[in-house]
Amino acid sequence: MKFVKNDQVAVFALGGLGEIGKNTYGVQYQDEIILIDAGIKFPQTELLGIDYVIPDYTHLTRNIDKIKGLFITHGHEDHIGGIPYLLRQVNVPIYGGKLALGLLKNKLKEHGLLRTTKMIEIREEDIIKFNKTSVSFFRTTHSIPDAFGVVVKTPPGNIVHTGDFKFDFTPVGEPANLTKMAAIGHAGVLCLLSDSTNAEIPKFSVSERKVSKSIDEIFHNLEGRIIFATFASNIYRLQQATDAAVKYGRKIAVFGRSMDNAIRIGHELGYINVPKEMFIDAHSINHFPANEVMILCTGSQGEPLAALSRIANSTHRQIRIQPGDTVIFSSSPIPGNIKSVNKIIDLLHRAGADVIHGQINNIHTSGHGSQEEQKLMLRLMKPKFFMPIHGEYRMLKMHSKLAIECDVLEDNTFIMENGDVLALSTNHAHVAGKIPSGDIYIDGNGIGDIGNIVLRDRRVLSEDGIVIVTISIDTERQTIVSGPELISRGFIYMRESGELITEAQRILRNHLKESIKNEPTNWSSMKNVITKLLGPYLFEKTQRKPMILPVILDVNQEK
Amino acid sequence: MKFVKNDQVAVFALGGLGEIGKNTYGVQYQDEIILIDAGIKFPQTELLGIDYVIPDYTHLTRNIDKIKGLFITHGHEDHIGGIPYLLRQVNVPIYGGKLALGLLKNKLKEHGLLRTTKMIEIREEDIIKFNKTSVSFFRTTHSIPDAFGVVVKTPPGNIVHTGDFKFDFTPVGEPANLTKMAAIGHAGVLCLLSDSTNAEIPKFSVSERKVSKSIDEIFHNLEGRIIFATFASNIYRLQQATDAAVKYGRKIAVFGRSMDNAIRIGHELGYINVPKEMFIDAHSINHFPANEVMILCTGSQGEPLAALSRIANSTHRQIRIQPGDTVIFSSSPIPGNIKSVNKIIDLLHRAGADVIHGQINNIHTSGHGSQEEQKLMLRLMKPKFFMPIHGEYRMLKMHSKLAIECDVLEDNTFIMENGDVLALSTNHAHVAGKIPSGDIYIDGNGIGDIGNIVLRDRRVLSEDGIVIVTISIDTERQTIVSGPELISRGFIYMRESGELITEAQRILRNHLKESIKNEPTNWSSMKNVITKLLGPYLFEKTQRKPMILPVILDVNQEK
Repeated sequence: MKFVKNDQVAVFALGGLGEIGKNTYGVQYQDEIILIDAGIKFPQTELLGIDYVIPDYTHLTRNIDKIKGLFITHGHEDHIGGIPYLLRQVNVPIYGGKLALGLLKNKLKEHGLLRTTKMIEIREEDIIKFNKTSVSFFRTTHSIPDAFGVVVKTPPGNIVHTGDFKFDFTPVGEPANLTKMAAIGHAGVLCLLSDSTNAEIPKFSVSERKVSKSIDEIFHNLEGRIIFATFASNIYRLQQATDAAVKYGRKIAVFGRSMDNAIRIGHELGYINVPKEMFIDAHSINHFPANEVMILCTGSQGEPLAALSRIANSTHRQIRIQPGDTVIFSSSPIPGNIKSVNKIIDLLHRAGADVIHGQINNIHTSGHGSQEEQKLMLRLMKPKFFMPIHGEYRMLKMHSKLAIECDVLEDNTFIMENGDVLALSTNHAHVAGKIPSGDIYIDGNGIGDIGNIVLRDRRVLSEDGIVIVTISIDTERQTIVSGPELISRGFIYMRESGELITEAQRILRNHLKESIKNEPTNWSSMKNVITKLLGPYLFEKTQRKPMILPVILDVNQEK
Repeated sequence: MKFVKNDQVAVFALGGLGEIGKNTYGVQYQDEIILIDAGIKFPQTELLGIDYVIPDYTHLTRNIDKIKGLFITHGHEDHIGGIPYLLRQVNVPIYGGKLALGLLKNKLKEHGLLRTTKMIEIREEDIIKFNKTSVSFFRTTHSIPDAFGVVVKTPPGNIVHTGDFKFDFTPVGEPANLTKMAAIGHAGVLCLLSDSTNAEIPKFSVSERKVSKSIDEIFHNLEGRIIFATFASNIYRLQQATDAAVKYGRKIAVFGRSMDNAIRIGHELGYINVPKEMFIDAHSINHFPANEVMILCTGSQGEPLAALSRIANSTHRQIRIQPGDTVIFSSSPIPGNIKSVNKIIDLLHRAGADVIHGQINNIHTSGHGSQEEQKLMLRLMKPKFFMPIHGEYRMLKMHSKLAIECDVLEDNTFIMENGDVLALSTNHAHVAGKIPSGDIYIDGNGIGDIGNIVLRDRRVLSEDGIVIVTISIDTERQTIVSGPELISRGFIYMRESGELITEAQRILRNHLKESIKNEPTNWSSMKNVITKLLGPYLFEKTQRKPMILPVILDVNQEK
């Protein structure tokens, strides 16, 4: 990067700023690039048909030789989901904790990338040394075990990336290493990159231990079947649900592919400790009395294809809701999903189940720290410069206010955009330039082959459908051979709209006859006639604006 | 209704049960039907391209001669929006308060239905008498003036419909008539139909007076321009915003068509009292200093075409955000809109505005009562039978629990579905039967011409687009004259997919040649060949499933 001087360290994000998702950060000093995380983002509803979004990796492909390694902070999709796509462009060694690598291996296997990828398991005490830089770690608490913050040591100073974190002094797994964080802060932090997800939420988040107690109480009081829905990625929660099942003598049936994977990997790697015989097959549920069954399933976000949704809709092959069932949502819906979650809750109620959800029962807690926890991190790290990451704009803005309250100078906080490059020397920092960082859409097998035109077409199609006008002409004899025929999809019931169609055909035919006589080979003029006439006519009659697609075939153009 | 006996009164809902929206209720005694409200519902996102949803009015068209009148509880869209569509099928006299009729008149004018509709303005003390039934009213508090509950007196007993209500002892407009409610309860209520919207929210809602104070404080402290966004339908809030503007010497510019209408009608009818000279044109905003301007606008729900959204996106013709501006969201986002609202908040922040939103500032309160208010209504009305209305299933269920807590017998509460008919005699009630009550979709000018097939097509189109295969054939010579050509929309960038297309054409051509030779006139078999071959081929190559539409033209079929 020519705009960064030789004695400066550059910090940038390809994803994760101004958004929740596709976290991809980089620290570059001279010819050494340290990457931190490579996540995906789940698309917003206006991205019709798109499966995932990843960042533009151009800067990385242009600098392959400089990249020393990709360091994964933890095993969540918004931190590791982009790796298979990154690896196709940049084959880079991957460093991560045991669980993160376990989940990643499963993913790479599906993509056929396992054998070609070098993975190095790290422990908290490891130091990975390169020529000019080195990387070390500190343990944090999050909703998945083996979550680490990353310290990149560079000649101008240390860059600290928190990963996703909360402070939970009574966690379910290992506690965060406050001692090490304090030591890192004491040694000096040039720039802190810190998780902003819950910067708008005051106070301190609820401990996972409280959730344990709630789960225990609920299980204690229930006689019927328990259907426990949560994120498959929340390994601690899975452990707690299965612990409760063991304690209260309930066999565990696991529903949903991602839940199956998480349980299997968590179990294999020792993060979920349940006797094997507690697990039962989905189809043997009915062999056990109601009070000896727990179903662990995906779909707590109302995802239409997940297990819980199919159970609620009575379309699940193995299970029907029966009176006495209790469904526990151990999750809180993200904003975009509230409607679908409510719909499922209603369906479950109608089917006769009891439903436990919401914060009243302390049945869920966030994996991200609230304001006081973000301030604690700031006070431990005492950074000279601050760059809020992992959040939408207003979260980043609020987080930088918190930093200023914790004595970071206002001029030293940087609310950046994806692609901005922060150039830091020991005493100075400024946004020095910009690298490519657009959104790349993944739809099926296609990476980046869907652009704005295709999406715009999908939007028009989704709202008013399409009308296709076909006509075959004889350019030599200057006549219409057959058509115009109108076919539509997503527009209107054609069978009930005979008059509308006949009239449209009549209008088109008259005008087309003329334009064939005048300019028999000018197809674009004929296409123009069709769209210019038909669009306004259909809008007048229906107040709808379907896409109009003229198809002209010339019978002389034999192949 | 044959399933209702002659001495029974029937109560039914065509809309409003299991949903928020399209409230349409009926009380029928022998040959007299009293209708209460006729609302629309705004469609869920999966109803692609649909503008509104109304109920199936079949039961009403079949019983036109029995309908005595439509009584409007208040002037909100989910209570009056369906009237233009109802009137086209059933021309019925409409009774309502002054403001509700004022808003309705505006609507009927747009639909060209004003002259043919009989409207009768009611006051709280009026009693509308028919042969066997009569209708009277009681004043409630809601987020719009002139909100009434309705009492239908019938020989078996009185049916009470609360309309939308909260209890606000320090309201901005007229207080609710507790005395009259108590008297109605004392006289005896056979069945209470009561608003369930906030049945999941404990305690008592915040008074509109508290919102006044918050608005006053905020205005007091601001030096820059104020952009005040709220529902146009919340006439009280408009009054408060304009009152504050007058007090602090800010001219008022009104943005957005529905806001314009609301201000105009509210002003004409005396519900919004602001000196005329306080209003300024949008384009003269810049003639005034920042601290003398308030912009009142629509779009507090993040609606993409509303004024606020265009302001945030810098696409509004008359106004750009400038540093020092403060945007007040005097509203709370409904679940489906949280993401779009957050997006707008982020855009406003980025443009340099301050944003005030959320409940912390008491800048909004609901127009619907919480649990304690619902209980107060129950205690005042002391109904024998209870039917929760105006809510999704879990709200109705919770509301019936509240009723049981307030001494309604469990067997006497009825959680019904749209179309269910409750037959009541003095001592007994049961769900006696069902009348038609489906959803009718309105898209542009079309009422009910969009059904599941069209919607399913729109969904497929929105996710993976469409591929059209055109081919013209000569059935006599049994050859392909031209094509197959592939055209796509919303599927993939065709220009960059040349190989994919060429290969698909080759495959299709080979197979089609054969099937034309074998069965030259069997078009459906040829179409089958196209979809059966192309679908799997495209899925294998792209993992997408576009709609495939074969179009075959026969050059011999001259017209």
